Amino acid sequence: MAKTKQTVKKDATALAEKQRNISVSEFFSKNRHLLGFDNPRRALLTAVKEAVDNSLDACEEAGILPELRVVLKQLSEDRFYMSVEDNGPGIIEREIPNIFGKLLYGSKFHSLKMSRGQQGIGISAAGMYGQLTTGQPIKITSKIGPKKPAHYYHLHLNTAHNKPEILKDIEIEWDIDHGTKVEIEMEAKYLKGRSSVDEYIKLTAIANPHVTIHYQSPVEGEDVVTYQRATKENPPETKEIKPHPYGVELGLLIKMLKDTPARTVKSFLQSDFSRVSSKVADEICAAASLNGNAKPKNIATGEVDKLHKAIPTVKIMNPPTDCISPIGEELLKAGLQKEVEAEIFVATTRPPSVYRGNPFQIEAAIAYGGKLPGDELATVLRFANRVPLQYQQSACAIFKTVQGLDWKKYGLEQARGALPTAPMMVMVHMASVWVPFTSESKEAVASYDDITKEIKLALQECGRQIGVHISRKRKNADEMKKKNYIQMYIPHIGIALKQILGLSDKNEQQVITTLTDTLERSRKL
Amino acid sequence: MAKTKQTVKKDATALAEKQRNISVSEFFSKNRHLLGFDNPRRALLTAVKEAVDNSLDACEEAGILPELRVVLKQLSEDRFYMSVEDNGPGIIEREIPNIFGKLLYGSKFHSLKMSRGQQGIGISAAGMYGQLTTGQPIKITSKIGPKKPAHYYHLHLNTAHNKPEILKDIEIEWDIDHGTKVEIEMEAKYLKGRSSVDEYIKLTAIANPHVTIHYQSPVEGEDVVTYQRATKENPPETKEIKPHPYGVELGLLIKMLKDTPARTVKSFLQSDFSRVSSKVADEICAAASLNGNAKPKNIATGEVDKLHKAIPTVKIMNPPTDCISPIGEELLKAGLQKEVEAEIFVATTRPPSVYRGNPFQIEAAIAYGGKLPGDELATVLRFANRVPLQYQQSACAIFKTVQGLDWKKYGLEQARGALPTAPMMVMVHMASVWVPFTSESKEAVASYDDITKEIKLALQECGRQIGVHISRKRKNADEMKKKNYIQMYIPHIGIALKQILGLSDKNEQQVITTLTDTLERSRKL
Repeated sequence: MAKTKQTVKKDATALAEKQRNISVSEFFSKNRHLLGFDNPRRALLTAVKEAVDNSLDACEEAGILPELRVVLKQLSEDRFYMSVEDNGPGIIEREIPNIFGKLLYGSKFHSLKMSRGQQGIGISAAGMYGQLTTGQPIKITSKIGPKKPAHYYHLHLNTAHNKPEILKDIEIEWDIDHGTKVEIEMEAKYLKGRSSVDEYIKLTAIANPHVTIHYQSPVEGEDVVTYQRATKENPPETKEIKPHPYGVELGLLIKMLKDTPARTVKSFLQSDFSRVSSKVADEICAAASLNGNAKPKNIATGEVDKLHKAIPTVKIMNPPTDCISPIGEELLKAGLQKEVEAEIFVATTRPPSVYRGNPFQIEAAIAYGGKLPGDELATVLRFANRVPLQYQQSACAIFKTVQGLDWKKYGLEQARGALPTAPMMVMVHMASVWVPFTSESKEAVASYDDITKEIKLALQECGRQIGVHISRKRKNADEMKKKNYIQMYIPHIGIALKQILGLSDKNEQQVITTLTDTLERSRKL
Repeated sequence: MAKTKQTVKKDATALAEKQRNISVSEFFSKNRHLLGFDNPRRALLTAVKEAVDNSLDACEEAGILPELRVVLKQLSEDRFYMSVEDNGPGIIEREIPNIFGKLLYGSKFHSLKMSRGQQGIGISAAGMYGQLTTGQPIKITSKIGPKKPAHYYHLHLNTAHNKPEILKDIEIEWDIDHGTKVEIEMEAKYLKGRSSVDEYIKLTAIANPHVTIHYQSPVEGEDVVTYQRATKENPPETKEIKPHPYGVELGLLIKMLKDTPARTVKSFLQSDFSRVSSKVADEICAAASLNGNAKPKNIATGEVDKLHKAIPTVKIMNPPTDCISPIGEELLKAGLQKEVEAEIFVATTRPPSVYRGNPFQIEAAIAYGGKLPGDELATVLRFANRVPLQYQQSACAIFKTVQGLDWKKYGLEQARGALPTAPMMVMVHMASVWVPFTSESKEAVASYDDITKEIKLALQECGRQIGVHISRKRKNADEMKKKNYIQMYIPHIGIALKQILGLSDKNEQQVITTLTDTLERSRKL
């Protein structure tokens, strides 16, 4: 025992001495794969993506039709330059350092609103990656109005303290009315094809027909590719909403009760949640056998359990849907039509639903047949809040649900544990005020039951339509065969009868017509 | 334009007003699926896992043979109580609140050392989940020596500031010499079977033969299950190491150059990296055409690029391996033998390798045939630093590599894009001073090329042995057939000859023996 005691004393203290704070940026620079920077090719895509997402969000919030300019240059074998410029509202000077030089800082995290960015990590992380791999700062140019000067910054991120370090801060001439430009130099690799930047730009144009993007690839001699907007309308502006009572967690409810300015539980329920009318609030209080006039703070420490249990027992309207803007069935089909030449395109947009109190909406579309390869696994296109998801496919609830569905029901081939082998492209979009991603790189949707259920229903709706199409196709093929038999043999019967009974050509034709009609009819029965 | 200007001014400022800091615990409580708390069943497992991992790490660091007591109780339909108690060194009083009530706080993050925990998130996150779903605090009891009092804490995590709130702090009697006990009440669901707590405990015992675990399931009337340790030896203590020069990033190199106490670049290289002798340091400086006596800080801002490029050009010994302790081929096989009854067990432990400067080592084992179902997909068991990985299989580099390998080469059936269909169980273990997980829940290994390459090599080595076994089996089967023919027909030939040539029984036997021998020999050629 003696020995142990000794060791122990030594170690309890020794261990204590090693205990330290970990800065969030130390954490993420050591875990940069969590942010989508695990290899040089993906890093390039992630950086472009974070910058473009921010630009699109800013333009839409300001009610500006987005026009983006994305430029990639190869500086050396493994070093690239990226620049993303937008015509957005610009960023006021004092916010620039924090927005681009500090992790976990942003405008979207605390609001329930459909947007591409949501975590306040992305663009700073891209800058941090550039700094980590090249030592170079992230460069920002921003202008908030024609009469205002443009500000030009060089920023480093101090990882030990998760703070921006301003290396340069000057005013410059910029001959645009307003907008922001982000430049990052990073270790990267450029390849075309699947999961490439090119693919990302193309898919983004498909899911965002109101956007014009000019894209300059890093390949020597390749021209700028311009994706012109197909519509001059921004998507309907999505409203910020309050949480819906269904699925609110006990701990969150306690926190809300403590923090609310409301004087009574009833007014708290009405003011801090969506879809809670005076009547519904009364019903909830009644179900919880609570006095609606009780002080929220008292409930928080006392009968919160009863309140929490009561909520699901009361019928509450689904959350408002104006906080989400789906792409829409027509547009989904149009998107796929741009992608592939197929026989049939089907699409469906599910009604909005809720998980953990967050409204969300699932849409699916399928292209089948035509020029799609029939002897390969079906391909899956995934989108979240209009952003294409190109990595971590196998970790994504969307992919898993497509793979897990029984496609044989719809007349398709499918090996156990694999995607169907069919000339098929499946596209799924999740729109939500808060998309639960499996990692900070925002490439895969987490498998919440409420979400996978909706995905499944959407896929089944499309699947059925494809199934009908396939069986009809088979039926027609069979009929064709029969028809051919008829056309092949009946004339000969005609000739035979003509010779046997010595019919006239006219009679012969009559016989043929009659026989054909009879058989056609019998076939139709 | 006027309108736009207006909107823009308004919005640049409006956006600015919404910009805010996001506390790391606000971030993770909203993203709790990142931590493994996305559904009640998984939450129970994750909580147990984080507590057990911490206990095992603490015991091993203190040189104590771990003996754990894991107790689960069902409090109501969807509410459970978890308690994990160890005989570890205990935690000194002042550290308890931060370790259990603050995210990103710990002893392991800043050191390159093989351990189960590494992020300083796990156990506090489990407590936070309990608080979020039940409002109850996490309860800690800890004692650091027989003559010391035990401290008993109730802690809440203040998510807005990521700080512990101490609700209770008293000294109590505890009749053990030293150890720590963690109690959490949480919303959860208990199911047996795949990915269950029971499975986790069993697999942990398999990968940690030096551990004794007493497990009380929440099922009424089920007895405590005890997994007795198979060895009285802790795994060899793993040393903490310095980063290896290969794969060090430019940004990190700059940071190290700025932070080092070393006076010269040469001494910096020798003191801050592993495997850099005086000779190697000179070679690096030469290759970078730098003066070894230059001040590190000057290099940091100047010729760091040259230094960074020079490192890979110099031959540097692989990192020391005493920082990693693999399970070992024998133990891997033994582990599988406990799991399944198979015909053949093969295993291999690869030599240590490096990714991003971090040493790691891959081991694989395969069980084939016997009682394993032949018409189902092979099963994959994944381990990282002796911790079983039970979720996010399809996101894991280990699983993807198993699935991606061409198993037909080894005589197995495999559908495109799927696991082989074979009576086979594959077990892979990654040991490293820093395992790159795809999310904070530490359930899947990220796909770094250097890592997947090693996994592939390990699987191929095992695959070949299985292939040999399979083809030998086929060969034997064929020979059996031939043999049977011989035994079937030769006697008749004997009888025939006897009758034709009128041989004696003795002659007949001779004939049979001679013919058999001849054929046996001819078959062997």
